[in-house]
Amino acid sequence: MASSLRSLLPKAPPRTLPRQRLPPRCPPHRRTYATPTLRAPDAADPKLAPIDPSLLQTTKTTTPKALIPHDQLIFGRTFTDHMLTLEWTARQGWLAPHITPYQNLSLDPATCVLHYAFEAFEGMKAYKDTRGRVRLFRPDKNMARLNKSVARIALPTFDGASFIELIKRFCRLEERFIPDARGYSLYLRPNMIGTQRTLGVGPPGSALLYLIASPVGPYYPTGFKAISLEATTYAVRAWPGGVGNSKLGANYAPCIVPQMQAAQRGFHQNLWLFEDVDAETGVKEDFVTEVGTMNLFACVRGKDGVKELVTAPLDGTILDGVVRDSILALARERLVPEGWKVSERRFTMRSLAEAAAEGRLLEVFGSGTAAVVAPVRSIGWKGQMIGCGLPEDREVGEVTKRMKDWIEGIQYGEEEHEWSVEV
Amino acid sequence: MASSLRSLLPKAPPRTLPRQRLPPRCPPHRRTYATPTLRAPDAADPKLAPIDPSLLQTTKTTTPKALIPHDQLIFGRTFTDHMLTLEWTARQGWLAPHITPYQNLSLDPATCVLHYAFEAFEGMKAYKDTRGRVRLFRPDKNMARLNKSVARIALPTFDGASFIELIKRFCRLEERFIPDARGYSLYLRPNMIGTQRTLGVGPPGSALLYLIASPVGPYYPTGFKAISLEATTYAVRAWPGGVGNSKLGANYAPCIVPQMQAAQRGFHQNLWLFEDVDAETGVKEDFVTEVGTMNLFACVRGKDGVKELVTAPLDGTILDGVVRDSILALARERLVPEGWKVSERRFTMRSLAEAAAEGRLLEVFGSGTAAVVAPVRSIGWKGQMIGCGLPEDREVGEVTKRMKDWIEGIQYGEEEHEWSVEV
Repeated sequence: MASSLRSLLPKAPPRTLPRQRLPPRCPPHRRTYATPTLRAPDAADPKLAPIDPSLLQTTKTTTPKALIPHDQLIFGRTFTDHMLTLEWTARQGWLAPHITPYQNLSLDPATCVLHYAFEAFEGMKAYKDTRGRVRLFRPDKNMARLNKSVARIALPTFDGASFIELIKRFCRLEERFIPDARGYSLYLRPNMIGTQRTLGVGPPGSALLYLIASPVGPYYPTGFKAISLEATTYAVRAWPGGVGNSKLGANYAPCIVPQMQAAQRGFHQNLWLFEDVDAETGVKEDFVTEVGTMNLFACVRGKDGVKELVTAPLDGTILDGVVRDSILALARERLVPEGWKVSERRFTMRSLAEAAAEGRLLEVFGSGTAAVVAPVRSIGWKGQMIGCGLPEDREVGEVTKRMKDWIEGIQYGEEEHEWSVEV
Repeated sequence: MASSLRSLLPKAPPRTLPRQRLPPRCPPHRRTYATPTLRAPDAADPKLAPIDPSLLQTTKTTTPKALIPHDQLIFGRTFTDHMLTLEWTARQGWLAPHITPYQNLSLDPATCVLHYAFEAFEGMKAYKDTRGRVRLFRPDKNMARLNKSVARIALPTFDGASFIELIKRFCRLEERFIPDARGYSLYLRPNMIGTQRTLGVGPPGSALLYLIASPVGPYYPTGFKAISLEATTYAVRAWPGGVGNSKLGANYAPCIVPQMQAAQRGFHQNLWLFEDVDAETGVKEDFVTEVGTMNLFACVRGKDGVKELVTAPLDGTILDGVVRDSILALARERLVPEGWKVSERRFTMRSLAEAAAEGRLLEVFGSGTAAVVAPVRSIGWKGQMIGCGLPEDREVGEVTKRMKDWIEGIQYGEEEHEWSVEV
């Protein structure tokens, strides 16, 4: 087990909650106390150093990797020459950023990320436009979400604009890894982990924020392929008051067995439901939340004939997807003038099944950074297969296709838009 | 359905679910399919190698550590000379076990444990009895729970008895680190992590099961200190259908902010509630689940005068604690003949508050491997402080004290009992 990145080892004294020795400060005679609310650790402690891009130190690789042919790219399997690392300690704050050759992390086996899942990440992409310029898509949204995620698990927050500046420098250095073909991109993975070496369960006294990057091809290299979903009724991904709205590692490992089971029965992905009482009817219903690791949209023609694009609301049980937000904004700008209704509201599997039976379910699609949109052909729910409106000879619906074209047009700089940020 | 989840995996790495290329095998024309149930990966795939203790290879340290004075031991901060490691691959199964000098792990920054929380652990202890023999306490329970935990996140299961055999050999090698004083022990931390290097979200194709050990002192070095709890109403630890009953890293990081907030307001730990409709009354109630990282017990005198030891049931929202199980068994054996009722049932904060107001709340205590039992003086709930029955001049109740004496008596071999296993 070779050692590297020795500087990962925490320099600050441990910042654990008292466990071995109990604090003697509880006033047992109080009769009342302030009612709690969930507060995030404060990002901008003036005593701690913020991220400072001007301190960036770059050590370039002496053994550049060969580029992989476009048609052999596999998501998240191969990485660029370098990585970006930023250490944080509770005593000092953010230390100088480093770009180094891509290399292993050397972690004590007691490091808290390995035991208590102190880890939160983001998924974003760098695109090359037709004029060869590198672009990011709404990176401020990723930074805001990562800050929300890390705060929820007592990891340090940071200034998003400063980290975006570092991401841009990293992308410029790794530009040769960004394929210059439509549908291709450089997948960027910011990740923050707690690095304190202790088995005490408490807020980490040190952390590492790092960025690695993997060149990726189009999700649908030969055109759309509509997928089928198995509605998962035996396991629940998230619940109100939980952490399903944060992009934590904790939300991902528990999703695999349901995905494997769906695959075993011939479905491409699973659909996460949340059983709850319908406020209108008082009856328990299966509410639709997310699909696999994507948000879900449905296009439904109401009984009044009005077409509606609907997705679950941000009630704490779903992830606040950047593509989800972009689809809603574009739909409000471009579909509403065509007579569409756009809704963020709870909706049930029963309502989808009913709409399908009555020929009113027009399209269903997932949304996420990897695929942008993923058309859905059918959903298996309680032993029934629900057709999602696609004719058998078609792989994608009209709204789904337009959304992909609109968003990719912005991502690849064909449409000038404030969401697309030049590197 | 195949009897083993592994049989549905590709035989060769990579072992990710299809994401970049979608499988072309969904039958869109089916109208029905089998209703799913959650199945755990099968431990005993005959094609894969099981753990084989006879293959153990030991490399002893050449730089033995100095022992730390008893009064300077801090939980999980310092470790013994060696670690036990077992690698697993989807192609081969369990490779030969190794005992090596304690050392860092070298992990690719794309390793799945760092992104998706593929990690599950156990907490157990080795004790030295008055005759100098080393003992474990119910290690079979830890192995059963670890197998349940790893299966839930698609990590490989294993034969518990074989791993216990390796733990015993490790404890014999590290015997000098086990303090020979009552209340002291060697904390053992088995941990399993997914080690596959890919950002694809799928079942890990490789894993590492390892064991590290930290000498620890008594939780209450100067005698019991009753703690105060803040009932957490703004965050929810677990939900039916979730993973709150598995000892996953995923369950721990999200607990820190509520613990910090409780500490900030002068409480020692937080108490996790679950709001749900009471089936008897139809009213929403705060049900008591766990305290911090311990199970919770209450001793209540009923309105009929009968004394009851009550703890939350294993409904999926609490951890199946080894000490919890031991307390219930001892209570049924030793308290029921004294007229006590012993109950695993849902109970509400309202019922505790009511019992406290009427002088019927006799004792409350947490239970866990670290402290065995932790007496509770008061609980803050909705702005009120609920006294838990302890007179101001006492730090522990009678049942709490007896439970600790009974369990420690077994752990340290003073009472011969099948739960205590000689190494």
